[in-house]
This record gives sequence, structure tokens and C-alpha cells, in this order.
Amino acid sequence: MNREDLYRQIRAKKSMLCVGLDVDFKKMPECVRVLAESGELMFKGMEFRGTARSIVEFNKAIIDATAPHCVAYKPNLAFYECYGVEGMRALEATVDYVKSRYPDIFLIADAKRGDIGNTAKMYAKAFFETMDFDAVTVAPYMGADSVTPFLGYPGKWAIVLALTSNPSAAQFQMAVKDGKPLYQAVMEEMMAISTPDNMMFVVGATKADKLAEIRTFCPDNFLLVPGVGAQGGSAEEVMKYGANDMGGLLINSSRGILYASSADDFAEAAAQKAAATAPYMA
Amino acid sequence: MNREDLYRQIRAKKSMLCVGLDVDFKKMPECVRVLAESGELMFKGMEFRGTARSIVEFNKAIIDATAPHCVAYKPNLAFYECYGVEGMRALEATVDYVKSRYPDIFLIADAKRGDIGNTAKMYAKAFFETMDFDAVTVAPYMGADSVTPFLGYPGKWAIVLALTSNPSAAQFQMAVKDGKPLYQAVMEEMMAISTPDNMMFVVGATKADKLAEIRTFCPDNFLLVPGVGAQGGSAEEVMKYGANDMGGLLINSSRGILYASSADDFAEAAAQKAAATAPYMA
Repeated sequence: MNREDLYRQIRAKKSMLCVGLDVDFKKMPECVRVLAESGELMFKGMEFRGTARSIVEFNKAIIDATAPHCVAYKPNLAFYECYGVEGMRALEATVDYVKSRYPDIFLIADAKRGDIGNTAKMYAKAFFETMDFDAVTVAPYMGADSVTPFLGYPGKWAIVLALTSNPSAAQFQMAVKDGKPLYQAVMEEMMAISTPDNMMFVVGATKADKLAEIRTFCPDNFLLVPGVGAQGGSAEEVMKYGANDMGGLLINSSRGILYASSADDFAEAAAQKAAATAPYMA
Repeated sequence: MNREDLYRQIRAKKSMLCVGLDVDFKKMPECVRVLAESGELMFKGMEFRGTARSIVEFNKAIIDATAPHCVAYKPNLAFYECYGVEGMRALEATVDYVKSRYPDIFLIADAKRGDIGNTAKMYAKAFFETMDFDAVTVAPYMGADSVTPFLGYPGKWAIVLALTSNPSAAQFQMAVKDGKPLYQAVMEEMMAISTPDNMMFVVGATKADKLAEIRTFCPDNFLLVPGVGAQGGSAEEVMKYGANDMGGLLINSSRGILYASSADDFAEAAAQKAAATAPYMA
């Protein structure tokens, strides 16, 4: 998906919301968890049983409920890998569901991969060819040659970690390179090998005070902003300092929407929460 | 597996060799690739067909041939994820094969994961509980709270990226923190939250000149050293500067051993290459 299509969708839905599909079986509503005990689901000619069935049913319900209010979905790979092969089957089914029902929605693999060039190529193949994600999050520690293999796919994106939302983010991201904080060097050097049409950056909402500064040297790239909601960041602050004239922001919320209700009305509650919190520039 | 058991195995085999199981279907010997066309393999009650069958058969042959000469195996996740669910099934079968046949061999998931605390917990679960790896490689960019969830499993290890072997390694790893290069700050700060019994570091063989310096501030931790062979590093240099009195090194070779021959004798050739190159301190 290109930047114009993403911006068009943001305007149409009046939303910059990205829903994080970080599905934890233990936190699912009881009515979805019991499905794990009750036979199989058939989807695209495949059987889903047990935990995988519950994950697929939960994701389908959340996606149908929230699609009118968001422009992106972001499954975090860890929450699927922890269930082994069955978890990966559930992920592939989720990708397929979004791509077949909601092809205009931007789909991000939150995988934070990063490896030497010939290995990074295999990760790009995994997320852009084997699975049909629009974007994958990438860790920059190994430098440019660990990122470039993700940049050769038209309409696909690398989303590089810059300044993250977790408590120990500053520990290494504020190291110094050429008189600048490391996260700024990462952004500037990644911008030099890419365009605003194939590169985004992760900037945590808990670092909203940094956003105005970031926009001075990075005016055009989209920023993926986690940390709103459960992690304590403010969507208003993020929009005030981070939006640009193409939207420029994907603001992620995961737990606050997925687990808005633990009762049978979980999907309706997720829709209401998504509609109520969908961030949009003034 | 604890450090004493690893050292005992190094002495018994006179080897610090780690074989990287980075299996690329396109590079496999013809005799293994044709298996993809020829019905299923049954293993532990599961069927393997197509590419997954070839990967499992190739890994089993390589493992049986090289096990007398190496102390560790290191599948790189990218080479399995790129085949989707079938690739992950092949990985789980490979893990199971090593653990059931060669329980003394140290098994590393080369995954380079790194995410916020509650997500890192899920990755730890994926590699240490769902799959029975002894260790997982971890990227440090997000700081200590992205690493600690891997440290709570007795006998399991986090292997944190410090100074890697790829051309752009120095781009960010040589940034400065507190007057020190970033990779050194990463190692020292990770050593402060761990012990030499649950933490190793990745130091590329292409950086052998740095090993003596690294041993001044990190005398005890095992170092996982990629970059010997195809990437141009020298095992002799690595041992000279990097070995310690518990061995202290796992020296990885992947392509040079896996693809030692493209003919029917590929496993025998891999065994000979492993035996000939198995690095061991003087």
C-alpha cells in the first residue's frame, strides 16, 4: 500500500488508529476461550482446533467490529510464536482474513527483526511474500545492511525502531553518535537509504515531548506510535506534535481495545472503545 | 544446559564448533530437493511433505554426520519462517530430533528478538517452553527490560548481540555511551543484570582484533562467534584472543559445512569439513 492510499483511508475514516492484535489466550473473554474445547472451525479449507481456533475467532470478531474505526492492524509475532506451529497457523489465517475482507487496511507485522543481509532477505520473504504484510518492524542495531533487504518491495515498508515506549528505552537509544542521540542518528541514516514511501519509524507515545524535535529533522515519514493507553501515553499530545500534512501517524492501541470487555459483548465494546479513542488530527 | 556441562562437552569432543542450520532449499543437494516431490516422511506421528520434508531430512542427515564434531546447533529462524507454517513445523521437528537424539548438544535459536517486557516474556515462552531451545539470541536496542524475561529460566541463556560480523555492524554499535563504545556499554550493563551462567554475547569473528580488549572487561561469559568461513573471519585468531579457562567460545560455521558438497555425499562431506575445521583451544 502506498502513502497516498494510506492518507486517503485516514481521511475517509477520520482515524489514525492502529489496533494491535496481541492476543493472549488467558486474557480472552470466556465465551471465546470455551471455543478451544468445542470442535473445529473451518476457514479457507483449513481446520482450526484448540487455542488456534479461539485466536482466529477472537481476531475475526475484533477485526469485524473495529475495521470501520481503524486504518491499520498490527499483530505482534511473539503472541503467535508462543503457541508454536498452531499459533503461526492462526497468524496466517488472520492475515488472510484482513487481506481478503479489508484490503484497504494497512497490515503490520510487529516482529522487530534484524539480522545480516542474507538473513534479512529471508525475513523479508517471510513477511512480504509468504505472508502478505504491508510492513514489518525492524531493529536497527546491526546497521543499514540489515534493513535494506526490506526496502526492495514496491508498496511494502520497513518500520525501524527509533525511540521506543518501554522503561529502558533510553538506556542505549540515547547513546551519542556524531554529537546526536543514537535514535536521531538511526533515523537520519535510515532516511538516507530510503524514502518516505518505504520507511516509517517507531516513536513511543511516552516520548511525546520528543516528537516536535523529531519533526524538525524528519518531517515526512510516517511514525508508528505505540504506548497510548496501557503504557500511559497521550494521543492528543502525539497528534499535536507528530501529525504532518499527509497524516504522518499510526497510533497504536492494543490491550485497551482487545480487552474492553471480558463478557459476551467484547466485540461491541472493542468497537465502541475504538470509535471513542480513534485519534484524528484537528 | 549449564556452563560446566557445556565445557565438559567441549573438552570431550575437543571442539568449540557450533553448526548453523540455516537451511536454504535452493542450495540443498539435488538428492535432498527431489524428496520434496516424493510423498511424505512420518516423524513422531506427524507427516512432512514438500519443502518441509526436504528440510527435515537434510537437517537429520547433517546433524547425524556432524554431531561427533560440534557442541552446538544454531538454526536461524529466518530460514524457517520464510516457508511459513510448514517451515515452523520443520523447525520444531529439528529441535525435537536434536533434543531426543543428542541431548548433550547446546541448541540455540538464532532469532535476534527484542521487544518490551510483556512481549519479551512471550518470546521467552516460545523458545524455552513451547520449543526446548537452550538459548536464544536477543537484540539489545530496547534496553534491559527487553532482555530480563529471558533470564528467569534455570539452565537457559540469553545471547545478546554486542559486536556483530556484518559490514554495517560499526554503524551504530560504535556509538558512544559514557565514553565507551556502545557494544561495550551493552555488554557491561547486561553483565550487571545477569551471570556468566545465563548470559552470552555475540561477537563477530570479523572483529577478532577486538576480542582481547573484550576479554579485559568480560573475562567469563561465553561468546558466540559467527563470521568464520563464508564471512571471512579466522577461527585461529578468535581462539587466540577469545578463549578462557572454561572454553568461553562457541564458533559458528553455517554455509561452509552445510553445503560442503552438492552431491549424494553431502553429509559425509559436512562431517569431514566439521572435523577438519572444529576449533579447539591449544
